[in-house]
Formats: sequence, structure tokens, C-alpha cells
Amino acid sequence: MTYFSTDFTLGILGGGQLGKMLLAETLKYDIRTAVLDPSADAPARFGCQRFEQGDLLDYDTVYQFGKKVNLLTFEIENVNVDALEQLEKEGVTVYPTPKSLRTIQDKGLQKDFYKKHNIPTAPFEYFSSPTLLNESLIQGKWSYPFVWKSTRFGYDGNGVKIVRNDKDLASLPQGDCIAEEYASITKELAVIVARNAKGETVTYPVVEMEFHPEANQVEYVLCPARIPQTISERAQKIALQVAQSFESIGLLAVELFLTQTGEIWVNEVAPRPHNSGHYSIEASYTNQFEQHLRAILNLPLGSPKSKVAGVMVNLVGEEGYTGDVLYKHIEEVLALEGVTPHIYGKRQTRPFRKMGHITIVHPNIEIARIIAQKVKETIRVIAKK
Amino acid sequence: MTYFSTDFTLGILGGGQLGKMLLAETLKYDIRTAVLDPSADAPARFGCQRFEQGDLLDYDTVYQFGKKVNLLTFEIENVNVDALEQLEKEGVTVYPTPKSLRTIQDKGLQKDFYKKHNIPTAPFEYFSSPTLLNESLIQGKWSYPFVWKSTRFGYDGNGVKIVRNDKDLASLPQGDCIAEEYASITKELAVIVARNAKGETVTYPVVEMEFHPEANQVEYVLCPARIPQTISERAQKIALQVAQSFESIGLLAVELFLTQTGEIWVNEVAPRPHNSGHYSIEASYTNQFEQHLRAILNLPLGSPKSKVAGVMVNLVGEEGYTGDVLYKHIEEVLALEGVTPHIYGKRQTRPFRKMGHITIVHPNIEIARIIAQKVKETIRVIAKK
Repeated sequence: MTYFSTDFTLGILGGGQLGKMLLAETLKYDIRTAVLDPSADAPARFGCQRFEQGDLLDYDTVYQFGKKVNLLTFEIENVNVDALEQLEKEGVTVYPTPKSLRTIQDKGLQKDFYKKHNIPTAPFEYFSSPTLLNESLIQGKWSYPFVWKSTRFGYDGNGVKIVRNDKDLASLPQGDCIAEEYASITKELAVIVARNAKGETVTYPVVEMEFHPEANQVEYVLCPARIPQTISERAQKIALQVAQSFESIGLLAVELFLTQTGEIWVNEVAPRPHNSGHYSIEASYTNQFEQHLRAILNLPLGSPKSKVAGVMVNLVGEEGYTGDVLYKHIEEVLALEGVTPHIYGKRQTRPFRKMGHITIVHPNIEIARIIAQKVKETIRVIAKK
Repeated sequence: MTYFSTDFTLGILGGGQLGKMLLAETLKYDIRTAVLDPSADAPARFGCQRFEQGDLLDYDTVYQFGKKVNLLTFEIENVNVDALEQLEKEGVTVYPTPKSLRTIQDKGLQKDFYKKHNIPTAPFEYFSSPTLLNESLIQGKWSYPFVWKSTRFGYDGNGVKIVRNDKDLASLPQGDCIAEEYASITKELAVIVARNAKGETVTYPVVEMEFHPEANQVEYVLCPARIPQTISERAQKIALQVAQSFESIGLLAVELFLTQTGEIWVNEVAPRPHNSGHYSIEASYTNQFEQHLRAILNLPLGSPKSKVAGVMVNLVGEEGYTGDVLYKHIEEVLALEGVTPHIYGKRQTRPFRKMGHITIVHPNIEIARIIAQKVKETIRVIAKK
């Protein structure tokens, strides 16, 4: 099979920033692409050869789109997996596999999977409704605080809540959920593993995520994580075990908790390029998007090593502003050393919306972190007057 | 002025690989673009917001295209400069400036410019035809061997010839030309300088070019050049002097000869991203395309320093093959360390056509060069059966 400068077409479900950054790599390789996204304004509407507007959760839309491509992938988990399975049955290659996606889409199934494969994860229990969870509390099987997670379609901190009292409990939406032990976390880490159909794998360095205290969104991602080598190695080993257990094809981003007692727990995984890997565009020998492409095309994988240290700053819409976006003071940020902006191409800002990110690279991670803080304190994502 | 995620539109004359790689950066910054190119199959037809097919040398086509954009730039020198000058008069910003382009387009004017600004360059003489050059030879003012250059529209070694005898002389096409002293060159070097409208400049490291012995095309570009520090510094100083003399805005790629007697001569310049700067996508803190964008938008310039050493291998069509391109053994190349392919998106190969390039990065330039040779010896750009 030859992909380069041919009619071979890669279909991408989802045209957000991840799709857009993946297109930068398909353009580099000259691989034809078609993108499906519900929004006519999707960031990935430029850079593909064909853009279709449509609902990613609609069976027919996804099925029809998939029938027209040679290989199908996705940049978002919230897609119609029944259609993917049908396409697979009919001979369309879908990577990452629908089977792994189905498990990952449901946090209950995902947790069961870890248990079954002896992958360390926080103790948990499944409930078909918050009412049953409440009964379990009354019976003393669970106690505050604990972590509530909706089993379906959580994203960027939605569908996850720390429940500290009856009032928190009463505010939970209906539906399937899990309760998870609330452990004291010292660091949130992530490791990206790439695996191709030949079963070859590469494991990226461990990154460290620093979260915004209120919005539960990542503010900084640091690579390498500032942790002892032994912990790094354990984290990479666990991430590789997860990817191999899933027999994943493409990228698998594994989010991990480092507990105060020194345990490493798998929090959750994403079978796609991930916010925690954006630093790789500037810092790595092979960035995560090119790596995903290599993996799903069953090409040799590239080196996951870093050329330099990297820190990524997410640019999210400032609270109190909704409307046409303005990146205030971006010029001052551009004057700082080793700074590269990625503006996703969303015209409208709203509080906490992911609008872009900025990567800071430097041979020294501590200096990169200092510059990153300056970036964060300088730039403002607001709306025009 | 704000450019990011607005209606501000950058017009790009030329949609070849340089335009395509520039679009990777406009997408990163979310700056709207329009591209004009004579070919419906131009590599940069994807990734822009608007693509127009048209003749870059036609006054009206260029003028009408320019009237619809906020800022006009070009990725190729062979454009209608009269139209650019008229657009500038009517208030359209054109960077690099039409004035510098007019000088650069004509090799006679370019050489005069160097003379006037005390910029070291090979001794030369202008002739309005090869017949007059022949008379000069007969009179003993010139003797074989010397370098003949057409004053207009030379590209990739076309329009340049080493004239060694009467037969060579007889084969020269009619038209304005210059004769240039043929010196023994030890190395061909290049330095890219970026300058914005505020007059800020940054100078990239010196690169070294290795040429294909027959096709007079660059086979390898190495950064850093393997030359003594003192020569590096002189080369950078001369390149900066050239950029400042032109009051250039945007990138200026300065090609230099290092002679056997240790002199550095300016060969010629290109007011745009340049083949000799492709290594920067993987190796530099700020790649040449992002730098060009920063410069023409009058934004702060980024660091031109390298994270790692880089070697670029041009992928040109193999002799004897014309037709639908096949990148044979590209998979073996992808398995080598630190390798990134750039496939330009031309469907048809022909002998010596620039079809793509491959960058090899490594902390050590000597190892990068060894891998580059392996790349070159492995991949074949041929046509499908």
C-alpha cells in the first residue's frame, strides 16, 4: 500500500483542534483527507481535501462518511461506535479500533478493563443511578469525600466531580455513574504510547500536568515531569501495559495519578492525540500527530524522545467574556524566548473554552516553566468590545 | 492591527512547496490566506482559505488578486513586479518590498547593488547579448573558464553556466547576461536573515550546501556548516549587511561562496523562505516560515537558534522517470532515527523535479550527515509502472 501523493484517503471524525493539528501532518506527508464535523466553522475545515458537515453521533452520517474513505480515524471519542463496528465488518479499517473505543467511551467498562488486566487504578464501584449510590452511602459502604464520574461522555472535567457532602450529592445528574476513592494526589501525570498494527510500540516521556484550581482544566503541561527517574520508569511501564492490554492501534494517552503514598493509578485513557502531548510539536523528534499517523498507517514509528524540554500553556477563554475573540498582548508573548503560539481558529470565545495553546521550549525545564508562567500572566483571551 | 482569528487576509503569490509550508504556519497562527498560482494542482491549494488559479506574470491577474488582500507576499520571485508597485502606490502593503524584488529579479542590477554597497561578490561584467560577450573574449578582456548568468528569471541552476570553451559559448541563449569570474569554491554557504518593518533583525546560523554534481541542485543542506567559527561570523555579518542594505522586510536568504583563498562572496539572494532553510522546521526554535510570517506582520522575531543539528536531503525526480510519482523505500527511510519527510504534493515526477525533502535531526551533525546519506541512498523518487 502506498499513501503518499495517491488517492488513498484518510477519514477523520471530528474537526476540532486535534483534527487540525493532525492535518498539518497529513499535509506534510501528502496524504489525502476527509473531515466530518458538526460545525461549519470547525478548526479543521481548512487543510483537508474534503470537509463534510454532519453529526458524529448519528449512525448514518458516520457510516456514509466511512464508506467513502480507505482508513477511518477520530480525534474525539464521542462518535457513533455502532457505525464504526459496522464499517469494520464491511472491511473498512478503523484505527484506533472500535472495540477499544467502546470500552473507553464507558467509564464503568474502562475501570472493569483495568481491573481485569491488573492495571492499577483507584478503587471504585458502579451504580446505575445516584439514588443507588446514596443508598450505598447510607449503608456506610461509601463515605465523603469520594469522586463521582458519569460513565458516559465526560470531557475536560465535565462528568467528574468531587462529592464532599449531601448537597454535592443532590446536585449530581441522573444516569449511570461510578464512585471512586478520593485519594490525595501529589501529581497528575500522563504518558502517550503509540502502537502500530505490527505491534511495534514507542513510549513518550512522562509529562506532568498542572490544573487550574477552579475550571479543572490543564493550565500547564511539562515535559519531562519533575519526578524521580524510578517513578518515570514505573509510569511508562504501566502506560505501555495499558496500550498492550487494549492492543491499541494509534496513540493511547494514559492519564495517571501519583498518590501521596507513591502509588501510580491509571485515571483514564484517550485513544487519540491528547492535550498532554501538544508540547511534542516543538519538543519531540516525532510529534504526537505525526506519530498517530505513522501508527494508524502501520508505518515505522518515530523517536518519542525530546530535543529540548517543553512546557505547554493552554489558552482558554477568560471568565466574563463571550464573543469575537481577541488575543490581547500576544505580541509581548511572541517576544519571549522559545515561544510558539497555536491558535485553533475558533472565532468565538467563552469562559474556559480551549482557544489555543502556547508551547515554550528551552534546554532547561525550570527556565521553560518560568517563561510559561510569564506567558500565562501576559496573554488574555477576551472578546472584542 | 490584530491578525489572529480575524478577517485580515494575507495574499501569497505562488502556491508551490514554499507556499504550502508557509500555510502550515498561517494555520498555526490562524491567519486567513489567499493563494494565487497558475496550476490547479499547486501544492498549496489546500490549507489556504481561498485558492485562485492565474498567471503570476500577468499584470491584471496579480493586481486584481492584490486588491482583495490586506498584505501581499510571494514565495517565488518570478511575479509581475509592475503590479506590485502599483498595488503599493494604492496602499496595499507588499512585503518583501517590490523595490528589493525588482533589483533581485535582474542579476545585473543585483550585482550592481552589491558593488554600490561594498558587498563582496565575484568580479563581473554586464553584456546585453552573448555576441558582445564574445567580442570581449576576442579582445582578451575575458577568458575561459568564466560563469555566464542570464540576468532574468534563473531558477535552480537554469540560467547559470560555466563556460569553458567556444562550444559552450555558442550554446548560450540570447539576451542580457553577465560574465562572472570563475573562482575555485571550497564551499557553498547560505545565511537567512529576517527583518521586520521596525528594522529588527535576526540572523540564522550558517548552513553548508552540497550540490549534485550534474544537476546543479542542492542535495544536502547542513546546519551548522562545518566551517571555522571565524568564517561563520564573517558570513553572518555579510548576510546581515546585505539585508540591511536592501532594507529587506521578511526573509532574505543570502547564498555565499567560500573561495579557496578564504574570501566570502555573495552569490545571490532570495527574498523569501529558501531551500537552504528547510532544516529549520525540525531543528530551529523558530522555523523560517514562521519567521517570515512574523517579519512581514511586523511581529517580534523568534529565536533563529537551533535545538539540534539538521541535515536536509532534497527529493528530486530520478532520471529516466516521468509520470505518477512513487516514493520507493520511503518506509525504510521512516525507520531511521530523527527522520521527517516532507512530500510536496506533486503527483507527477520528472527528472530533477523537486518533489519533497527529508530532514534528519540529531544532536551531532556528523551523525545526522551519515543518516542523511543513508536516506539519500535508500529512497527513490520514480514513476509507477
